[in-house]
Amino acid sequence: MSARPDFVHWMTSIQQRTESALETLLPPASRPPDRLHEAMRYAALGGGKRVRPLLVHGAGHLVDADPPRLDRIACAVELIHVYSLVHDDMPCMDDDVLRRGKPTVHVEYDEATALLVGDALQTRAFELLADAPVADVPADQLAMLALLARASGSQGMAGGQAIDLAAVGKQLSRAELEFMHIHKTGALIRAAVLLGARAGHPLPADELERLDHYGKQIGLLFQVVDDILDAEADTATLGKTAGKDAEQDKPTYVSLLGIGDAKRHAEELLADACATLAPFGARAIHLRALAEYIARRSF
Amino acid sequence: MSARPDFVHWMTSIQQRTESALETLLPPASRPPDRLHEAMRYAALGGGKRVRPLLVHGAGHLVDADPPRLDRIACAVELIHVYSLVHDDMPCMDDDVLRRGKPTVHVEYDEATALLVGDALQTRAFELLADAPVADVPADQLAMLALLARASGSQGMAGGQAIDLAAVGKQLSRAELEFMHIHKTGALIRAAVLLGARAGHPLPADELERLDHYGKQIGLLFQVVDDILDAEADTATLGKTAGKDAEQDKPTYVSLLGIGDAKRHAEELLADACATLAPFGARAIHLRALAEYIARRSF
Repeated sequence: MSARPDFVHWMTSIQQRTESALETLLPPASRPPDRLHEAMRYAALGGGKRVRPLLVHGAGHLVDADPPRLDRIACAVELIHVYSLVHDDMPCMDDDVLRRGKPTVHVEYDEATALLVGDALQTRAFELLADAPVADVPADQLAMLALLARASGSQGMAGGQAIDLAAVGKQLSRAELEFMHIHKTGALIRAAVLLGARAGHPLPADELERLDHYGKQIGLLFQVVDDILDAEADTATLGKTAGKDAEQDKPTYVSLLGIGDAKRHAEELLADACATLAPFGARAIHLRALAEYIARRSF
Repeated sequence: MSARPDFVHWMTSIQQRTESALETLLPPASRPPDRLHEAMRYAALGGGKRVRPLLVHGAGHLVDADPPRLDRIACAVELIHVYSLVHDDMPCMDDDVLRRGKPTVHVEYDEATALLVGDALQTRAFELLADAPVADVPADQLAMLALLARASGSQGMAGGQAIDLAAVGKQLSRAELEFMHIHKTGALIRAAVLLGARAGHPLPADELERLDHYGKQIGLLFQVVDDILDAEADTATLGKTAGKDAEQDKPTYVSLLGIGDAKRHAEELLADACATLAPFGARAIHLRALAEYIARRSF
């Protein structure tokens, strides 16, 4: 695929500018309470694929959005994601010790600090969307804030975590598994796409719906690939503890469909996501490449 | 004091309308994930003095703000407060089993649910300020959102929790103790006053500063009285475990100043708060009565 070197270049540049924006937008480690601020930076900086920031910028490209504005939106979405990882790794949830190749926050610091780090990262995410312009008019910015909140809360990501907790040790149907993932990881991924798409020139409703469908499909794709990688990869490649799902008796696409059908399902989702983008033509170049990347990633 | 029966009537009506607004603004327990929604309602409904909602309405009265708008703001501030209680009670923090006379969320449900309840209540707080009008123009609403976020995050309430954690077993100076409380409880109390004051007709900067000083003083007053009550009351009266601070070797105003000087300090703070309100005359009737109430409360 000839676009790949260009995509890698674009992806690297977005990852770098996201890192740099997070550096700036998180409180310095020297500011009191310094241990909390240091731990917030430990959790958020220096790692991660930055899939959600890539989606924000990819969708923002489609509407010619101002890149510094996209940086702020990307950081808000990423901080919601990072807060959820920090809390999800805690002993009372997944009890995981490794994340992005480093000890998890409660291991490196302590549980109470991890709890506060997650809390304060969430707060900072909403603060980022409130204390500087990310849309042409404040009313649009409020709508974007509400969108991020809906995607993150009890009827989005946090709700998905609750459904996941309740599912441990249970046999789920494919519909139930999909319902869980549409909330747990899908809601925030969809929000990333839609927030980027709302940061530039206005799109007609049918095009926003198209992007929402794209976001839904790659959210599921992301999870199916995650389950495949968790079943197949080793811990060193993954940068987090591999094989945890099976060990914890959590339902996955692999446990439900088998590895072959899980891979076929991933291909279908990829094809559907790309077809959804077709009417956007060249403007969707990054979103198309991101769908490919999410499908083909090995970590 | 002749105003007291009127104040009790007003206070009861605000507490009732806050309860009713929270009932409406929290997701129904029947909506999936139902266990999470049930636990969110368990944490937030049916208890508490609703000090922050009272402050929102008291300050809102001063600027003739629309009461339903104040209800939404009051609920947002209260949900931030409740989320912090739920997380603060968890085993890795204060490890408390009783709150508002009921088992804490992690005791009644489980730790993972308590973690998610706190997370989702925080999200809902910001959503409330984003998804319906609480100011005349959206730009003011964004500023109010940013104000609540600043007061709640790593440089406000969550930061105060971190300072509190770091202080266990240490001898603090009075200045250090005050710094901790200005963040831990003071920031959100100040925010409650300022958010109420920004929901109606605009106030000049010097009057907003005056209200901010009032908020700062009653925030400290609240904490000094809390420390006195914790040292003197028994668990049944308090509705939470009494004597925890001394047991956990946490610095308090009582341990630092002695009970006599702590009580004298409370009187000074009350007098200063009331003097600050003097120029507002009768418009500050509820804020003045609230300062008295915070000083004289027995639970």
